[in-house]
Amino acid sequence: MRLPHATSAEGLDFAIVGIPFDTAASFRAGARFGPNGVRNISAMIKPNNVAMGVNIMDSLKGADLGDVPVIPDYIHETYAAIEQTLDGVLECGAVPISIGGDHAITLGELRAIAKKHGKVSLVHFDSHLDLCDTVFGQKYNHGTPFRRAMEEGLIDPEKSVQIGMRGSLYDPDDFKIAADLGFTVIPGDKLHTYSPEDLLKVIKEKVGDNKVFLTFDIDFVDPAYAPGTGTPEVGGFTSFETLQYIRALKDLNFTGFDVVEVAPPYDHSEITAYMGANIIFEFMSILAYQKKIGKRK
Amino acid sequence: MRLPHATSAEGLDFAIVGIPFDTAASFRAGARFGPNGVRNISAMIKPNNVAMGVNIMDSLKGADLGDVPVIPDYIHETYAAIEQTLDGVLECGAVPISIGGDHAITLGELRAIAKKHGKVSLVHFDSHLDLCDTVFGQKYNHGTPFRRAMEEGLIDPEKSVQIGMRGSLYDPDDFKIAADLGFTVIPGDKLHTYSPEDLLKVIKEKVGDNKVFLTFDIDFVDPAYAPGTGTPEVGGFTSFETLQYIRALKDLNFTGFDVVEVAPPYDHSEITAYMGANIIFEFMSILAYQKKIGKRK
Amino acid sequence: MRLPHATSAEGLDFAIVGIPFDTAASFRAGARFGPNGVRNISAMIKPNNVAMGVNIMDSLKGADLGDVPVIPDYIHETYAAIEQTLDGVLECGAVPISIGGDHAITLGELRAIAKKHGKVSLVHFDSHLDLCDTVFGQKYNHGTPFRRAMEEGLIDPEKSVQIGMRGSLYDPDDFKIAADLGFTVIPGDKLHTYSPEDLLKVIKEKVGDNKVFLTFDIDFVDPAYAPGTGTPEVGGFTSFETLQYIRALKDLNFTGFDVVEVAPPYDHSEITAYMGANIIFEFMSILAYQKKIGKRK
Amino acid sequence: MRLPHATSAEGLDFAIVGIPFDTAASFRAGARFGPNGVRNISAMIKPNNVAMGVNIMDSLKGADLGDVPVIPDYIHETYAAIEQTLDGVLECGAVPISIGGDHAITLGELRAIAKKHGKVSLVHFDSHLDLCDTVFGQKYNHGTPFRRAMEEGLIDPEKSVQIGMRGSLYDPDDFKIAADLGFTVIPGDKLHTYSPEDLLKVIKEKVGDNKVFLTFDIDFVDPAYAPGTGTPEVGGFTSFETLQYIRALKDLNFTGFDVVEVAPPYDHSEITAYMGANIIFEFMSILAYQKKIGKRK
Amino acid sequence: MRLPHATSAEGLDFAIVGIPFDTAASFRAGARFGPNGVRNISAMIKPNNVAMGVNIMDSLKGADLGDVPVIPDYIHETYAAIEQTLDGVLECGAVPISIGGDHAITLGELRAIAKKHGKVSLVHFDSHLDLCDTVFGQKYNHGTPFRRAMEEGLIDPEKSVQIGMRGSLYDPDDFKIAADLGFTVIPGDKLHTYSPEDLLKVIKEKVGDNKVFLTFDIDFVDPAYAPGTGTPEVGGFTSFETLQYIRALKDLNFTGFDVVEVAPPYDHSEITAYMGANIIFEFMSILAYQKKIGKRK
Amino acid sequence: MRLPHATSAEGLDFAIVGIPFDTAASFRAGARFGPNGVRNISAMIKPNNVAMGVNIMDSLKGADLGDVPVIPDYIHETYAAIEQTLDGVLECGAVPISIGGDHAITLGELRAIAKKHGKVSLVHFDSHLDLCDTVFGQKYNHGTPFRRAMEEGLIDPEKSVQIGMRGSLYDPDDFKIAADLGFTVIPGDKLHTYSPEDLLKVIKEKVGDNKVFLTFDIDFVDPAYAPGTGTPEVGGFTSFETLQYIRALKDLNFTGFDVVEVAPPYDHSEITAYMGANIIFEFMSILAYQKKIGKRK
Repeated sequence: MRLPHATSAEGLDFAIVGIPFDTAASFRAGARFGPNGVRNISAMIKPNNVAMGVNIMDSLKGADLGDVPVIPDYIHETYAAIEQTLDGVLECGAVPISIGGDHAITLGELRAIAKKHGKVSLVHFDSHLDLCDTVFGQKYNHGTPFRRAMEEGLIDPEKSVQIGMRGSLYDPDDFKIAADLGFTVIPGDKLHTYSPEDLLKVIKEKVGDNKVFLTFDIDFVDPAYAPGTGTPEVGGFTSFETLQYIRALKDLNFTGFDVVEVAPPYDHSEITAYMGANIIFEFMSILAYQKKIGKRK
Repeated sequence: MRLPHATSAEGLDFAIVGIPFDTAASFRAGARFGPNGVRNISAMIKPNNVAMGVNIMDSLKGADLGDVPVIPDYIHETYAAIEQTLDGVLECGAVPISIGGDHAITLGELRAIAKKHGKVSLVHFDSHLDLCDTVFGQKYNHGTPFRRAMEEGLIDPEKSVQIGMRGSLYDPDDFKIAADLGFTVIPGDKLHTYSPEDLLKVIKEKVGDNKVFLTFDIDFVDPAYAPGTGTPEVGGFTSFETLQYIRALKDLNFTGFDVVEVAPPYDHSEITAYMGANIIFEFMSILAYQKKIGKRK
Repeated sequence: MRLPHATSAEGLDFAIVGIPFDTAASFRAGARFGPNGVRNISAMIKPNNVAMGVNIMDSLKGADLGDVPVIPDYIHETYAAIEQTLDGVLECGAVPISIGGDHAITLGELRAIAKKHGKVSLVHFDSHLDLCDTVFGQKYNHGTPFRRAMEEGLIDPEKSVQIGMRGSLYDPDDFKIAADLGFTVIPGDKLHTYSPEDLLKVIKEKVGDNKVFLTFDIDFVDPAYAPGTGTPEVGGFTSFETLQYIRALKDLNFTGFDVVEVAPPYDHSEITAYMGANIIFEFMSILAYQKKIGKRK
Repeated sequence: MRLPHATSAEGLDFAIVGIPFDTAASFRAGARFGPNGVRNISAMIKPNNVAMGVNIMDSLKGADLGDVPVIPDYIHETYAAIEQTLDGVLECGAVPISIGGDHAITLGELRAIAKKHGKVSLVHFDSHLDLCDTVFGQKYNHGTPFRRAMEEGLIDPEKSVQIGMRGSLYDPDDFKIAADLGFTVIPGDKLHTYSPEDLLKVIKEKVGDNKVFLTFDIDFVDPAYAPGTGTPEVGGFTSFETLQYIRALKDLNFTGFDVVEVAPPYDHSEITAYMGANIIFEFMSILAYQKKIGKRK
Repeated sequence: MRLPHATSAEGLDFAIVGIPFDTAASFRAGARFGPNGVRNISAMIKPNNVAMGVNIMDSLKGADLGDVPVIPDYIHETYAAIEQTLDGVLECGAVPISIGGDHAITLGELRAIAKKHGKVSLVHFDSHLDLCDTVFGQKYNHGTPFRRAMEEGLIDPEKSVQIGMRGSLYDPDDFKIAADLGFTVIPGDKLHTYSPEDLLKVIKEKVGDNKVFLTFDIDFVDPAYAPGTGTPEVGGFTSFETLQYIRALKDLNFTGFDVVEVAPPYDHSEITAYMGANIIFEFMSILAYQKKIGKRK
Repeated sequence: MRLPHATSAEGLDFAIVGIPFDTAASFRAGARFGPNGVRNISAMIKPNNVAMGVNIMDSLKGADLGDVPVIPDYIHETYAAIEQTLDGVLECGAVPISIGGDHAITLGELRAIAKKHGKVSLVHFDSHLDLCDTVFGQKYNHGTPFRRAMEEGLIDPEKSVQIGMRGSLYDPDDFKIAADLGFTVIPGDKLHTYSPEDLLKVIKEKVGDNKVFLTFDIDFVDPAYAPGTGTPEVGGFTSFETLQYIRALKDLNFTGFDVVEVAPPYDHSEITAYMGANIIFEFMSILAYQKKIGKRK
């Protein structure tokens, strides 16, 4: 989107942060090139969102802060680096929009978010719950971040919604476990019967006016529309459905966003990266819309 | 489709013309290989269209006239070459079906069409309006052809319809400008709520029995179905929806067709080229249908 | 799916068999790598199918018997090898689940099935009828298997259903010929208006409690979702629709299954192979479901 | 090379013939698209060969006769079709230059060649000997053509040379068997120590002024230079070495040529197809050279 | 190479300039993505060149000035933009290192160079001479830049050397024409017999201490090593030979450099872009070396 | 190579072990799919090595033990798993041949090797030294294994040789540091002037009859020949040179081998995986040769 580069979020409404860490992925790595891939193709995005009635460049001040200095294979050191970068963004009052990276990174983001905003609601688009206690016997990777986030008190399961989960499972009780932990899950099969308004209604009921962090795993989208990802899952959603679902959430009280698991080595014709760039464009459009109607300063 | 080669359109119902020019494209070039890509994969197409109840080989005489001698980077010389080739086709009473190339080429086609048929209606499937006054400060490229066509009196905006537009825009007023110029625009978001019959109704109301040129930019189709194109746009249409929309128009008074922006270097498994070949097959089927019912001789 | 390897189907509920033969394909070969492609990506499949309420590993004993020793370019010798392998599976009382290979192989499978079970019902998902008398003047290839199967008395057309056919045809009467032979055909255009329940109703009416062989050509699915195949056809079905259609058939009396025409050289990001693996997972889930409710021992 | 299309070789010096048959390949199929791939990229070839001092368009009359009507999976019917096409070319006194297809096709070509010219010398560039008695127990496929050609009296092993063989072998005595049959083999390891002049000397000694058929399997070239082939073999030759070796043979008494095993599905950036097109260009250049010096009329 | 971004060349030893213009290419476009492709992969380059004994970061001050605002399809407007950007670089006393784009751009660069330095020597690595008077009847495109540069008095043919030309030609006299114009040409066939020292000797003899512009078309390198380019040519040079040839020229009096025709859409695994990045690294190393030995301040 | 599967190395001469760990890679991950990629393509390898005069299947008993249960992102746990698997192999008296995975894994292998055989000589083919003290401030990753191996007393630098190093460096003194640590380094530039016999001479002088571990990073080979790797480096070696260098070492006293950094997501046409499979074939051939001449029982 040809955003200016910046080294600080001073005076910004939002800040783009790349988090090129993918060594916590269980199947295919490659999301480390996600920030670069999304930035490259974002040159195709223009500032006006007609559906939302906003111009993001006119309404908002934003910049690209570059990449967090992650360390391949060293997840705790990487978490510290993520937290430090997002702390800086949040201190300036800007909304962080991060580009992954695999889903493990979101734990680092949430640590910074919670420090600033307290326990938040999670709105989580994905084909997987990412609520495992351990994967391969280990507690920190791309299958466990929201279990850890809950344990660390960063998110409030009772006010959080997970959307689009589908595919074969290791544990038949995964959905039940999520429910027992307090999360509201809208599996993919059910979502296929929901209009954007239906989705909003369920989320609004749980989240209310609570502060929200929206995390979007690109594998929510069907592999036909987003082949370039680590663990694609059939039975997913179209690009149009995805945009409609996100736009429906325009009145939630957002504190931050991320898009994760865009893996350019498995993409072709950059369609996955472009899908990721458009999702970010919708995030920005929500911020612009909220500013326009006075909900956000 | 294993059509015979020919050097003249003498005695033909339709003539295929390749226009391998893509240097007016703003983002990704590659549509110069579109004619070749579509021809190669068209070997998979057989003559009977069951949905339309016609056999194009039995009903029609057609041939492939090869490629227009375009000149990379020289748009005016290329326009002259396109016009000359289409003049020849139209003089013989054949319907030209052109394969692009980027969308700039359609201006050259319309010059020949209007010379023969007068000011025509444009039926335009695309994700972009292509109505800019200038792009990069220049008047002739793939973002401006229909503005020029209107100015040159080749098309009648009041009797023209643009279908499927979506995506982020440079100018928030693009849709308003199109309307001010007289065009009827059916944005993608609205089209997603239309049945083929709904679409026909809107078009029929505007176009009536006027002579029509149908131009189809492959990026009307969603990138999942047509990744091989210069400026793909998410939120598009499926292959099935596309076929249904085109078939609905079978009674319009067509003078010519084109399919543009198929870019093989960005395609995979030739699915975009095959989509393009099927759209052309539907055009031929409409001609065969009109001949069968006596509407066309 | 990390199934154990086995050399015999002794004591198994189902046996996976690869049939890497593709030299009977008319357009693009490559399905010989289908068994390998599907096996590789099946590592992503886990044992629980929530939609069906089953765990295939807990309910069933299955193994991978490896590949049939096919001979490229020698179809009759290959048929003999397929028959011999499936005879062994069927003698042990296991259900064969074969991975093609092109569609010609199904004739070999049906010879073994009919020897054991008598004339069966065919439930056939595909974009093509594969009922030609000859292709290129030859009787045995991937366009003719079900004509031969009918002539050999292996399947009962009056109790068989073909689903999803679409695309241009050589012979306008193909659907009529199928009907004259006794087959019930649900063309793609019609299927697009059917719910899974509608589909079940039509099939159930024809098939009843007859023994059934389900053959699934991956080109039933739209090329956007399954580009890696020999003769892709636009206007097809999504991954979600496909799963729903298969799940709807969970009460039929199945004797065997196959998935054919997955061609990895034309795939990308393994999305076609993964679609094939998920279809097989649904087959297994049906077996597990039938065992769970006592319909199958 | 933008050659004219023709339906007969009447009055031609050479005729291009496509033989899109690959179902006799043991590992990867795809060479059926070889003729198309080589023709597409040959648009990059211009008429002057400076190294040989000739202009092929000025010196020679040539045309493209299109493809032989091969039948996938039916090798004997295909051989008949190849023979019939080449008979027509040879009767007109033109030199056939065929584009494969897999190496099995050369047997069909040699049958036509021998009928016209008697037993010829084979000059065979390849990484494999293709002299097996049977492969998978079958006598006709891409591993056996020269064993059959010898048995049928089409080639004279004592006056034939096989060049570039390398890689792991099923039978340690393959080279000895070739020698016992009378062939002269220059393994790849030895050829790496030969200059073009050394190669010519060995060939000239065996072949003398005998009539020669040159068959070139693209896997002679190293996979780095020709990845798009069915059975690539490491330790091969560069593009420059290859051109030099062929040019060295400019005085042999050629009756025909082929290039086989170009498999576009495994190619990238068309580098293999372009290598194949350049090899054909060198064949044409030899014919032009021989005509220029009066050796050929 | 993670160079700092800058908006002016003030105080720099060298400035990187991207020139993403490719619409003057005759065959395959895509070099417009060359600057981006080379920059992305240059993250793999580190500062020390052991062969040259220099550290470019310690010795030199350099920055990336971003891309020239080129206009697709408008070559004269693009030339003006190139000239303006390079004028700025040269005024600051920095050495411009440009990344194409197709070879047409070099004419724009030479206009700026000659304005500052007068008529320079051209050292030109390429598989093509690019000395045509017209291509497709037009005077300005990627086949004519050095003919125009000579006519405009920007380069001195008598002190210029063209290196590596090969492949089929339209005009058999191309090499003679170059010679008649005064250029020294070392065709590829001859260069294959030269050591780096031999090459230096020939160049030094012609160029002497004259000011030099080095232009490097990536298709000098063989397609095996650089597939991602518009008009690849077999019979080329290896990556190692290429580095050795460039290093041999370390004492010439360079005023500027470019690398052109890297076309990422045809690249794979980024090997062509990485080759381009390494060539630029060698250019920088020569500047560092000359500064170290006091030849350059 | 269609080796039998086995769960123990009991009675074997060699055992193949996959180590699909790549999260210690600094640039591109993907080597986790190396074991699978090499196994798939190894179906093309046959048992006879003519250059070495051996049949590996007749001379040796070998099996594939499958993959070590590595844990993405957890290097110490992974090292323990590698060590345990190799301990088992070594206890049985079999020679381990491991397939990586990134180069970090070799440290785990060497721990097992040294436990059994004491401090060994390292013969190391690579474009990088992998002797860094830390990378990104961390001690364990794919840039540091041999520094750690030396510190842990697993290898004897004075009797070890590193071969083929090249490319730009972070530290100009890398080669000096290696020398100071005691290693003999043959940089790529120098190796380009060595015959296989020259190489053997240098290695033999250092290594003598000491026990040897040979580790082969596929990026020793030039990217044209092995594009599918994490950190490709231009200026490398051809496939033929590589085979010749390895064969020259047939008399060394080998205790184990590995091939690392084959990354299938960046490969095309499987040429890198096939190169890796051939290197392993040469390792096996050396074992067979040593057994044949009585040097190994």
